[in-house]
Amino acid sequence: MPRRAALAAVPTPAAVLDLDVLERNVVRMANKARTLGVALRPHAKTHKCVEVARLQQERGARGLTVATLAEARAFADAGFADLTWAVPVVPGRLDEVVELARRLTFRVLVESDAAADAVARAAAEARVSLHVWIEIDTGQHRTGVDPASDLAESLARRLATTSPLVFDGILTHAGQGYGAKDRAALERAAATERDVMVALAERLRRAGVPVPGVSIGSTPTMAVVKDLTGVTEIRPGNYVFNDFVQVAGGVCAPEDCAFSVLATVISHQPGADHAVVDAGALSLSKDLGPSDPVRRRGYGPLLRGLAGGEVDPVLQVRGVTQEHGIVGPAETAEGQARAPGSAQSAVAGAEPADVEGRLAVGEKVRILANHSCLSAALFDEYWVVRGEDVVDRWRIWRGR
Amino acid sequence: MPRRAALAAVPTPAAVLDLDVLERNVVRMANKARTLGVALRPHAKTHKCVEVARLQQERGARGLTVATLAEARAFADAGFADLTWAVPVVPGRLDEVVELARRLTFRVLVESDAAADAVARAAAEARVSLHVWIEIDTGQHRTGVDPASDLAESLARRLATTSPLVFDGILTHAGQGYGAKDRAALERAAATERDVMVALAERLRRAGVPVPGVSIGSTPTMAVVKDLTGVTEIRPGNYVFNDFVQVAGGVCAPEDCAFSVLATVISHQPGADHAVVDAGALSLSKDLGPSDPVRRRGYGPLLRGLAGGEVDPVLQVRGVTQEHGIVGPAETAEGQARAPGSAQSAVAGAEPADVEGRLAVGEKVRILANHSCLSAALFDEYWVVRGEDVVDRWRIWRGR
Repeated sequence: MPRRAALAAVPTPAAVLDLDVLERNVVRMANKARTLGVALRPHAKTHKCVEVARLQQERGARGLTVATLAEARAFADAGFADLTWAVPVVPGRLDEVVELARRLTFRVLVESDAAADAVARAAAEARVSLHVWIEIDTGQHRTGVDPASDLAESLARRLATTSPLVFDGILTHAGQGYGAKDRAALERAAATERDVMVALAERLRRAGVPVPGVSIGSTPTMAVVKDLTGVTEIRPGNYVFNDFVQVAGGVCAPEDCAFSVLATVISHQPGADHAVVDAGALSLSKDLGPSDPVRRRGYGPLLRGLAGGEVDPVLQVRGVTQEHGIVGPAETAEGQARAPGSAQSAVAGAEPADVEGRLAVGEKVRILANHSCLSAALFDEYWVVRGEDVVDRWRIWRGR
Repeated sequence: MPRRAALAAVPTPAAVLDLDVLERNVVRMANKARTLGVALRPHAKTHKCVEVARLQQERGARGLTVATLAEARAFADAGFADLTWAVPVVPGRLDEVVELARRLTFRVLVESDAAADAVARAAAEARVSLHVWIEIDTGQHRTGVDPASDLAESLARRLATTSPLVFDGILTHAGQGYGAKDRAALERAAATERDVMVALAERLRRAGVPVPGVSIGSTPTMAVVKDLTGVTEIRPGNYVFNDFVQVAGGVCAPEDCAFSVLATVISHQPGADHAVVDAGALSLSKDLGPSDPVRRRGYGPLLRGLAGGEVDPVLQVRGVTQEHGIVGPAETAEGQARAPGSAQSAVAGAEPADVEGRLAVGEKVRILANHSCLSAALFDEYWVVRGEDVVDRWRIWRGR
């Protein structure tokens, strides 16, 4: 397969990146960060891709955020000099952390005394300066120190005064924005993320602890935030691709989605109201998408035609097994397709004809994944397109 | 990391294979096939691993089943000479199919006239003999020809008389066994799988179409089946590992599960009834497990201790994000952990103390994945153990 080809000739299943959309998304968030007066440190867990990170850097991103040490090593090898590993540091992998910290500015998250002990010991033994953020819980209640606790202050003080650690400040991820019921709720989550962090930074400074950085951000909260006074950097990740979760949440439009999965129809039995494509759970993931079930479209809607940009109003992936995706008009019970010829569609206007007409064996379709980060991580490379022309292939750095 | 080490020293997250259990599972299914008088062609999509396939072959497996062409190429390179690609053939990838068919006996699935056209043309152009099965729908209603249809007979006749195609016979996967409510329902699914296929083979033979093979099988249906008269081969896959779905379905016991995920506790805030491990959606998948919600244990229960073999009665992964797993006693809304100190457990006898006592930052845990096939496919290698000793590392052939 030559680099330049038609999208329709790409072997399926395939991860497709629309470069025009990607570039727009990169520029839009970079401009937003500039307008709001904060640094942009994109979360690269979404793309795991050196070429995408370079586009972000060229447009003004300062440093990257990573979710795995495999990503960190790939970006280090590509010359990136400033990375934050935005998961509470794994004590058993501090030898790898130290190795990275010898090569570049490597920043880790600490949110317990046990982790602080381990990090301080590893840095001292290796005689390497290691950057540390304290992770703060601003409402997601997943990880992070309670901002009202004594621990927030004692841990900050300890990290700020322990050599050879370098205390970077306080960091949070308001992941609860993904559960917001409407725009007002999302705006409240975004305001809380900022307000809680700025208040904590002020409290720590009053207590004599210097707080160089205040790092926040997710794609939904950054989409609605108006004022970031007191914040120094933001770390959205998904914005570079977007996905159906963001569309359903009102964060972006379908034409803002840069990532999709190309699949081939491999089965359609006469009279059935479903067809089967070669993109299943190992292409789309089993992410059910929007947290609001009313907005769900199974494992993702189809796009209209191969050019992309518009969501099909009827067809979606309504079930997945390992390498099979069940495509049809209506949502039935998870993973259950209906018997050939037996079903009445639950969607007004959706008839077997919708499937018959469009989903012949051998046809290719594009699927808008519910969750682009999880879907991309299932592939080894992106097929990069402008319109329906393949213009490049970029490696995805999966692994640990 | 040397090959021989303690499991506790393995970097997390890691895919762990218990070799003693694996060998037992391999032998048990091989013996069952022998007793029932059928060939065993294991589905390698579960393990994607040459070393596991060799164990299966040494114990009498004849050929392998694969779900992807990446698996097919890996097994071809390792010297396996007889493979079935058990997904309806993807027309756009027939060049790769032909390439494989030049190297070994390669069998593909056809279940439409369109696919038959494409396969016949590709084989004729390449002058390579290509083996074909017709896939039959015995009740899963995912893929496969209706066994009562005229198409079943016309397609069989066509494939049996089209050179250079070699007609292997009829093949099915009774995936509906995974939705069986109880053992009686599972036994009915298994009986239907056999009966429908044997009846169709007889009908085709009466109509003058030779049917060399009748291929069926899934792990649940093979666990309960008593008689396979008329069947020539079975293709269970999951049995080699098993998983929590099989345990919950009564198909095996926890000590029959060879695959688990090793993870490290990376967060536990004071007073919280949850901890966080470094195994999230990209280690466990987002498979919700048993189709019966009553038997669900979130994204998988913990095992007791590092030696494995016994399911923890209280602790489970109750939510996942990309690289985080929320571990705690009770199931809350998907992906939502409770606020530190705020929650009463919904499980009798489950107190924050269960978390406090066992899940300190830095501790390692083993998780029984809901769906071992999907979880294994997220890793690059297995850490192979006997007890808590690492005895080998085996590559996982992910990809397309």
